[in-house]
Amino acid sequence: MPKAVVSRLSLYLRELQVLVRDDKKTISSTKLGRLLGVTDAQVRKDFAYFGQFGYPGIGYRCEELIQEIRGILGTDRMWLAAMIGCGNLGQALLGYRGFQSQGFSVQAAFDIAPEIVGSTFHGLKVHHLDSLPGMVEEKGIQLAILAVPAEVAADVAELLVQSGVSGVLNFAPVTLNLPKSVSVVGVDLAMELEQLAFAVVKKGEK
Amino acid sequence: MPKAVVSRLSLYLRELQVLVRDDKKTISSTKLGRLLGVTDAQVRKDFAYFGQFGYPGIGYRCEELIQEIRGILGTDRMWLAAMIGCGNLGQALLGYRGFQSQGFSVQAAFDIAPEIVGSTFHGLKVHHLDSLPGMVEEKGIQLAILAVPAEVAADVAELLVQSGVSGVLNFAPVTLNLPKSVSVVGVDLAMELEQLAFAVVKKGEK
Repeated sequence: MPKAVVSRLSLYLRELQVLVRDDKKTISSTKLGRLLGVTDAQVRKDFAYFGQFGYPGIGYRCEELIQEIRGILGTDRMWLAAMIGCGNLGQALLGYRGFQSQGFSVQAAFDIAPEIVGSTFHGLKVHHLDSLPGMVEEKGIQLAILAVPAEVAADVAELLVQSGVSGVLNFAPVTLNLPKSVSVVGVDLAMELEQLAFAVVKKGEK
Repeated sequence: MPKAVVSRLSLYLRELQVLVRDDKKTISSTKLGRLLGVTDAQVRKDFAYFGQFGYPGIGYRCEELIQEIRGILGTDRMWLAAMIGCGNLGQALLGYRGFQSQGFSVQAAFDIAPEIVGSTFHGLKVHHLDSLPGMVEEKGIQLAILAVPAEVAADVAELLVQSGVSGVLNFAPVTLNLPKSVSVVGVDLAMELEQLAFAVVKKGEK
């Protein structure tokens, strides 16, 4: 299944959640597509990978489709996560309410800097990284959000693997080479700006 | 040209910059591919979209390839950006050194909250959003980093368009429908965690 389809599932979910907040009960594939800037055929094709969710003459029932997508993405349950690195970015991410609402609960935070360990950010006390393995096991932490400097990211990721974490959301601008059993999604903020610059340049050339 | 290729250009660039820092002069397509987890054929195919950059028996010259990729991405010049929204995330992004090193300079910061406007974060004073249009023109700002709450993102984006910004890096979890002349790249942090959850679930099923 193409990665782009899985990305769009998240986008459909986001739009459907807005619709439900606005008290909309159903939506057609045409309208749902328009919200994302894709065709109705694309919408139907995307969902066809997973089953048949629409109703003839009605379209999709928003609440039902939300449940289906959450089931597919695996966010119909609560995921327990740890924040690794509590500098600028880590602190900001600890305060990000969007995680909790989508089914992610940050249960513990870690750092190594003496001036940060022991501090509390957004209600969460920062522990020393040395206590990571024990706390991953004790709290049943499955995912790690890695917001450490590039230079130490590989070593910290290694520790995460040894601690039994199943997935890493990597904000450090390095490619992590982890065992196949551990999933990695990378978010490189400078890279995103580069992609934007490229899009702007391309438009200027037209 | 597939979006995935442009994304990989950023990844190649990142790896090449590490190689140069480590004083490596050349690299083969096989080794470069291995750093990203792709085949040497993929590396050659990706670059073939843009020209012929390798040397038989030598591979790629790192410095030269960096310049070529920067030229393609449009980051061989400095881009001037504005930070819109200086809450948790905006403040963290203002402190992010990775932008500057990749050719992006945040020249101005904006917010509307009385307790934030007038503050200084990482050396940049926060202005009221009302002064955005004038400052975009005065400073020649091309890109905006949008780190405002979802509820106001569409309205603020509209103001950005009117102010003459060419590209928006959107951290608000909403799809922006902007005129075709303005490029948008969206970064939804909860979506990235969803994609990670999906990858972990899929691995568990194998």
